[in-house]
Amino acid sequence: MRCILTLTSDFGRDSIYVAQMKAVLLSINPHLTLLDITHEIPPQDVAAGAWVLRQVIPAFPPQSIHLAVVDPGVGTLRSCLAADLQGRYVIAPDNGLISLAAQRLEVRKMVRLEAAAYRRPVVSNTFHGRDIMAPAAAWLSLGTPLECLGPLHHEYAVLAERFSPSRESRRLVGKVLFVDRFGNLISNIQQGDLPETPHIIVSVAQHSVQGLTTTYGVKTPGELIALIDSQGYLEIAVVNGNAAQTLGVSVGSPVVVTW
Amino acid sequence: MRCILTLTSDFGRDSIYVAQMKAVLLSINPHLTLLDITHEIPPQDVAAGAWVLRQVIPAFPPQSIHLAVVDPGVGTLRSCLAADLQGRYVIAPDNGLISLAAQRLEVRKMVRLEAAAYRRPVVSNTFHGRDIMAPAAAWLSLGTPLECLGPLHHEYAVLAERFSPSRESRRLVGKVLFVDRFGNLISNIQQGDLPETPHIIVSVAQHSVQGLTTTYGVKTPGELIALIDSQGYLEIAVVNGNAAQTLGVSVGSPVVVTW
Amino acid sequence: MRCILTLTSDFGRDSIYVAQMKAVLLSINPHLTLLDITHEIPPQDVAAGAWVLRQVIPAFPPQSIHLAVVDPGVGTLRSCLAADLQGRYVIAPDNGLISLAAQRLEVRKMVRLEAAAYRRPVVSNTFHGRDIMAPAAAWLSLGTPLECLGPLHHEYAVLAERFSPSRESRRLVGKVLFVDRFGNLISNIQQGDLPETPHIIVSVAQHSVQGLTTTYGVKTPGELIALIDSQGYLEIAVVNGNAAQTLGVSVGSPVVVTW
Repeated sequence: MRCILTLTSDFGRDSIYVAQMKAVLLSINPHLTLLDITHEIPPQDVAAGAWVLRQVIPAFPPQSIHLAVVDPGVGTLRSCLAADLQGRYVIAPDNGLISLAAQRLEVRKMVRLEAAAYRRPVVSNTFHGRDIMAPAAAWLSLGTPLECLGPLHHEYAVLAERFSPSRESRRLVGKVLFVDRFGNLISNIQQGDLPETPHIIVSVAQHSVQGLTTTYGVKTPGELIALIDSQGYLEIAVVNGNAAQTLGVSVGSPVVVTW
Repeated sequence: MRCILTLTSDFGRDSIYVAQMKAVLLSINPHLTLLDITHEIPPQDVAAGAWVLRQVIPAFPPQSIHLAVVDPGVGTLRSCLAADLQGRYVIAPDNGLISLAAQRLEVRKMVRLEAAAYRRPVVSNTFHGRDIMAPAAAWLSLGTPLECLGPLHHEYAVLAERFSPSRESRRLVGKVLFVDRFGNLISNIQQGDLPETPHIIVSVAQHSVQGLTTTYGVKTPGELIALIDSQGYLEIAVVNGNAAQTLGVSVGSPVVVTW
Repeated sequence: MRCILTLTSDFGRDSIYVAQMKAVLLSINPHLTLLDITHEIPPQDVAAGAWVLRQVIPAFPPQSIHLAVVDPGVGTLRSCLAADLQGRYVIAPDNGLISLAAQRLEVRKMVRLEAAAYRRPVVSNTFHGRDIMAPAAAWLSLGTPLECLGPLHHEYAVLAERFSPSRESRRLVGKVLFVDRFGNLISNIQQGDLPETPHIIVSVAQHSVQGLTTTYGVKTPGELIALIDSQGYLEIAVVNGNAAQTLGVSVGSPVVVTW
């Protein structure tokens, strides 16, 4: 049965760990369409992994399966989960990794991956991605009902919210959430957070921009601009340049909007 | 319908932008065989992207589709194109990105991607790879005729030629076009540019090599050699070593052939 | 015909060489499921490539095909091989690359890739991965018998063994074989090499650990632990940290077990 299955982890993209997970997946379902989201989540950075899943999973169609392994607690009492998020399936350790995607997609059902029949015969203590989660994902892709993988689970670990900017009367204080490969600064301020008026001032690292631009190429190279990016967030960029380097700004720096 | 679809971009291989393009592609045609050429084109370096497409697209069979997004002008008046290059389809912004592949493959037909039915319902200003080009590529893979994607387009942007060496009577002056992972220096001098005589001298960075070698392993480790590489270009290499590091040479350095 | 085909090389993951090999593979068999193991083997490091194949190939199911190109001797008299390793097929130059996987999987049959019908029409001197090995792998995936690819071959090149620790009466001396992305130190000491007693002391770089732990999360962050890893090897780790950085240890450092 053909099925889209994505992989996200902190294993490093060239690691034998990723190859071994794929070998398990394809041994169970050779017809899978495997897709690497990234294996370069910083080691053990559950929040970074959760943010990637939040931005990516809603773009995939229902019935797609998403295997996510950032798992510093592997082998301890934390559970491994399979969750139905509006028809997409996410397989992940119960450490908050799914909680940011769950802000955008309703969690309809969850189970703990405890059914021995859907694990590898020998389960290691340190690689549940290969031994528990990959087999469950592959069996799910073959049509195995979620309920067969283990008992229902009702509460998943939630990461401390870090996405909402703080609000004062005519002022929003957010921060840089993410710097992309172009050096664009993506903030945690969403389009809907902004006031109706176009007369806003966006400030970051003692630089200010008046008003929003529609896209990069309408301003001159080197100019600092603010715009709503393709993800719906307020972004600060340098036209044909690198805002992060030019302004000396990185993840976590404050972004202030006033009007 | 199964179809080979390659992706080339400057988004960075682990970026959510690549994952979102793939999500759009597979949402429209779940049977695509997706293949990443590279997402590590230097940011906004259209010429570097065009060179990769030139080296890679002719190797793929007719009916294959090639989505290429290096797009500093996104959201401005530049068009997005779908072009038939001897049966291979290339989807790219009209900024020169296809022009070097078009030196090797005849452009049979081109359209501008203006038909709203084959775009995403909401088109952002800054991510036409996801919102315009990926949907067009996916619909094309399902058999949608090129003409349905938009009006015919007759002239594409062309990059300034940078591939031909200059010629004097018994002398060719070229340059290093590309350094591969082994430190091999690939020049812009093609096999057909060289004279009939085997008695040539190849010079780069005050080092000279007499005559051509057939392959690396026929000379001793550490030796500087010149050869015709697997792409048909004159290459300078150090056997079991790294010519770029040894000679202190990088892209753009002159390569001179005399005889 | 659908078939799993993995790729391992030292070409660099974004190189046109990898893309060209895939173009050849899919031109012959468009239904291949291609999977990159890694293209980041250090340039010309046959032993590193052989170790990856050893850890990865046994995890794949029979009938899978594994194309491996780390080939400093390309174009010289060394042969290119196709080998049946307990039902998995490995295509590689005869330079030792398959010899470590062959410690785990029985070599049932080997041929040299000399049949012109299963090579590209023009074979370059420097890229047999594209011109000889990729076509052979693709034809094999279509059901071509191994014997059709060329004459039987009876002895393959073998890398000097580097995996066994040395043994004294109550002492094992091994070394760090591999450092993963988390900084975990994986030694060449396997579970079966260890004594029955749990009262062992594991030493590396003037640090010692008493006894083995089952997994990372059962100890406190920052603590140095020893455990049997998911590959069956003795591993030294820092909980939620990076042992390689903390201890200043890298590949080749001695690991000593006493009891």
